[in-house]
Amino acid sequence: MTDKLVKNAAGRLVPEQINGEPVVPFMGVGKYRPDHRKYTSQIPTNADYPLDGNKQVVNLKEALQKAGLKDGMTISTHHHFRNGDLVANMVFDIAHELGVKDLRWFPSASFPCHAHLLQYLEDGTISHIEGSMNGPLGRYCSEGKMKKMAVLRSHGGRYQAVQDGDVKIDIAVIGAGSADAFGNANGVNGPSASGLLGFALADSQYANKVIVVTDRMVPFPCIPWQIQGNHVDYTVLVDKVGIPEKIISGTTQVSKSPDRLLIAEMTAQFCEATGIIREGFSFQAGAGGTSLSIGIFFGEIMRRKGIKARFARGGSNQYLVKLLEEGLVEYILDGQTFDLEGVRSMRDNPNHVWTSPFTSYNYHSKGNFAGMVDVVILGATEVDVNFNANVVTHSDGYLLHGIGGWQNCLFSKTVILPLPLFRDRIPVVVDEVTTLCGPGELIDVIVTERGIAINPLRQDLIERAKDSGLPIKTIQELKDEAELICGKPDKPILTDKIIAAIKWVDGTVIDVVRQVGGQ
Amino acid sequence: MTDKLVKNAAGRLVPEQINGEPVVPFMGVGKYRPDHRKYTSQIPTNADYPLDGNKQVVNLKEALQKAGLKDGMTISTHHHFRNGDLVANMVFDIAHELGVKDLRWFPSASFPCHAHLLQYLEDGTISHIEGSMNGPLGRYCSEGKMKKMAVLRSHGGRYQAVQDGDVKIDIAVIGAGSADAFGNANGVNGPSASGLLGFALADSQYANKVIVVTDRMVPFPCIPWQIQGNHVDYTVLVDKVGIPEKIISGTTQVSKSPDRLLIAEMTAQFCEATGIIREGFSFQAGAGGTSLSIGIFFGEIMRRKGIKARFARGGSNQYLVKLLEEGLVEYILDGQTFDLEGVRSMRDNPNHVWTSPFTSYNYHSKGNFAGMVDVVILGATEVDVNFNANVVTHSDGYLLHGIGGWQNCLFSKTVILPLPLFRDRIPVVVDEVTTLCGPGELIDVIVTERGIAINPLRQDLIERAKDSGLPIKTIQELKDEAELICGKPDKPILTDKIIAAIKWVDGTVIDVVRQVGGQ
Repeated sequence: MTDKLVKNAAGRLVPEQINGEPVVPFMGVGKYRPDHRKYTSQIPTNADYPLDGNKQVVNLKEALQKAGLKDGMTISTHHHFRNGDLVANMVFDIAHELGVKDLRWFPSASFPCHAHLLQYLEDGTISHIEGSMNGPLGRYCSEGKMKKMAVLRSHGGRYQAVQDGDVKIDIAVIGAGSADAFGNANGVNGPSASGLLGFALADSQYANKVIVVTDRMVPFPCIPWQIQGNHVDYTVLVDKVGIPEKIISGTTQVSKSPDRLLIAEMTAQFCEATGIIREGFSFQAGAGGTSLSIGIFFGEIMRRKGIKARFARGGSNQYLVKLLEEGLVEYILDGQTFDLEGVRSMRDNPNHVWTSPFTSYNYHSKGNFAGMVDVVILGATEVDVNFNANVVTHSDGYLLHGIGGWQNCLFSKTVILPLPLFRDRIPVVVDEVTTLCGPGELIDVIVTERGIAINPLRQDLIERAKDSGLPIKTIQELKDEAELICGKPDKPILTDKIIAAIKWVDGTVIDVVRQVGGQ
Repeated sequence: MTDKLVKNAAGRLVPEQINGEPVVPFMGVGKYRPDHRKYTSQIPTNADYPLDGNKQVVNLKEALQKAGLKDGMTISTHHHFRNGDLVANMVFDIAHELGVKDLRWFPSASFPCHAHLLQYLEDGTISHIEGSMNGPLGRYCSEGKMKKMAVLRSHGGRYQAVQDGDVKIDIAVIGAGSADAFGNANGVNGPSASGLLGFALADSQYANKVIVVTDRMVPFPCIPWQIQGNHVDYTVLVDKVGIPEKIISGTTQVSKSPDRLLIAEMTAQFCEATGIIREGFSFQAGAGGTSLSIGIFFGEIMRRKGIKARFARGGSNQYLVKLLEEGLVEYILDGQTFDLEGVRSMRDNPNHVWTSPFTSYNYHSKGNFAGMVDVVILGATEVDVNFNANVVTHSDGYLLHGIGGWQNCLFSKTVILPLPLFRDRIPVVVDEVTTLCGPGELIDVIVTERGIAINPLRQDLIERAKDSGLPIKTIQELKDEAELICGKPDKPILTDKIIAAIKWVDGTVIDVVRQVGGQ
């Protein structure tokens, strides 16, 4: 990279341009003030759309052609079908067939099922990916093979980028469990039901052309209309949009590891001891094995104390649904359903509410829901002695995970990272994170199997935890303990080449990821 | 008026400017093509809003002051509380108290309860009204007393105007039956429950500052969030936002007049005879006495034929709710609830769906729901021999009604106007309507107690009605018959002064209204 780098407010060297477009370096939490107007699209007129509302075309190829697919466009898809998605692969198979080149793929996230698209990164159909890359695509990117720089954003940051015009989508292709010919669509019905379609909301509102693809076409009206047909240009019926058994995430099993269960229990104890679990509180526990266990412990505490939570934020799963149905949680405000119980509950229970990155996470709005959550439980690949955390790269430097809603959730009242002190004999608490995703000032508590560290900025929590009997330590003590057992971890071996940029929730660049290998 | 007038595509003389702003004369149905982008607001940042989501201020005065209320601003309110609204009066009482002048009031509609505001039109607090004026304000305007020209728009046209930036709202004040401190709000709960808040949707999305006012503040989250707090700047709790017994419209009584019942029955017979009522059809009947009766007749026909409707568009009422609960209608897609049964059903029945002028009526979108409705039953004050219709002025020239969704509904597959042939011995079918609100090419059938006239453009309907045994006549025959009984009606006595403009659904000027009186 010959581009000039500047040191941002987090002390990280970041470029002033990404793929030829100027960007703003991270300025500190809440410091960047946007000074322009939201993006806005050309005014459409009903005169250009069929009066009877039937926008169905014969197949996806025709829809893409009518939408004007051509070289250099930005094409968006969404990860509602997670690792069972068939839509993104179909889109780029067609693009390849039509000989279209240099497409920017702007998925809300990509999964191992999208390894199919590596061939199109190779042959130039796709120039690069802006979106979370879980697995093989991240590895490909890490090895410096992608033609342009990747950009990773949080769910809220993706909404912000579209709303603000940082990313202008030419064609959005929205896969849906159920739709009508007008384009109203939802994720709660149909053979590929996945719950909701919130990640496609921004795309439906701001993309130039919008295509809805489904394998369950119902007569108008498709209710609920999580995506409103009034934003949609074309609708397509295909045989299959997703593979149902792969839509359901593999991460929704309660942990059986004794260490993980211990961490989960300590986290719940910490929340009880510090008074976070109280009548009318709110929480977001997430979908990993440890998080699921924490949700179950929370339920036990609420039952014992005879209190209930006003709301829980999803990702939802069978355990959270159980709390809702038991009356221990009044509302689930859900961003994605991780299992079929979640889908069923969202479809049938009006207190299981579908949200979107706009309502939940968009930092460039008049407030969002994240800040109202009393406690949020998140994961991380690394955390450093200043509580800065990494969620995208491993300690070997490989970019293997997306940001998801992680950055957005950091604005919750208390942020807890329950983490094993080491993984595969590599310490998780380090001197400096490989990639900075979340500033330490927003991260309050690290819970490990060997002790709990509280951010010194949270003297209130330190005070409240004092007589809890819990093993409160400093983060330095945790790091020393890990290194005593595992030794000091090696630094990853990286080249100078920047392969991806990490955006903060306000669209500024908080860090970069470099190519693995070299020397 | 010294402004130059031009003849629009409907042959009406209209100004090229309204209150100093250029406007486009009506160019014909579907002819005007917008060539610019949608309006868009300054990008906000969460950094400017309380992290805990609590946007509640002590009272409406403080909210208006914080929102920067000052001379010349555009202030919007909404008619969800209909003639029981207390919010608009409060807003302008405060503006008056603060000595603010020259406000443009942009209500979704105004009612007799807003006669309170005449004093502020007199003293210059309010310069003029852009919005439907039902009753006293319309009379005041008709007498030429308003400082600037009024502008009337349909519900869809109001959304279009806000979306396209024709009207830039400085402060939107949204009265809600129920809200939380963050600004999430709905109309289904609380002592002033009115059903839904769809008329305020555009305002919440596009206004510079948004204030939610309620008399039922609930802890976050207020579910359903028909208005999303992410758009809201301030929230206010007041003693009372509306007078419940006046929120419920007085027009939801089934007609007892034998003539009206005959018209209703003939309308239903016509729909049956021409095959409009068939399995899976859709209809919109409206809220007047005749319309209600038509809905009841529709129900009888469906029961007898053993068929059901896929959906009915509301305004909903107890009769429509009964059809839904009986299974004769699968979905109600509702724009406003006209009685408490409608409110209850919308709150509790997921098949009673709340819509908005965006989904239902906005002409500057990628299609809307209006065109998908098989048959819509509408009223009119006058209709002429070319099927052009008037819905805002009486034959004496007084502007006493709003447009509502009337213009938008004209895009339905079949538009029927069931009308008495004369009212107070004044013929309803005339040579030329006093005010043109809907072009005759969109109006298909006039049903009167003395015969049914079908628009010659609808040869298919003429063919299908041929052997129905119904009294099919030409519209000229109906007019002649009326004049034989009542005599030729007098033309209204009007001055040259234009007191109001009537917008078409695409924002162009279809006609004007002139001051009553003078010579």
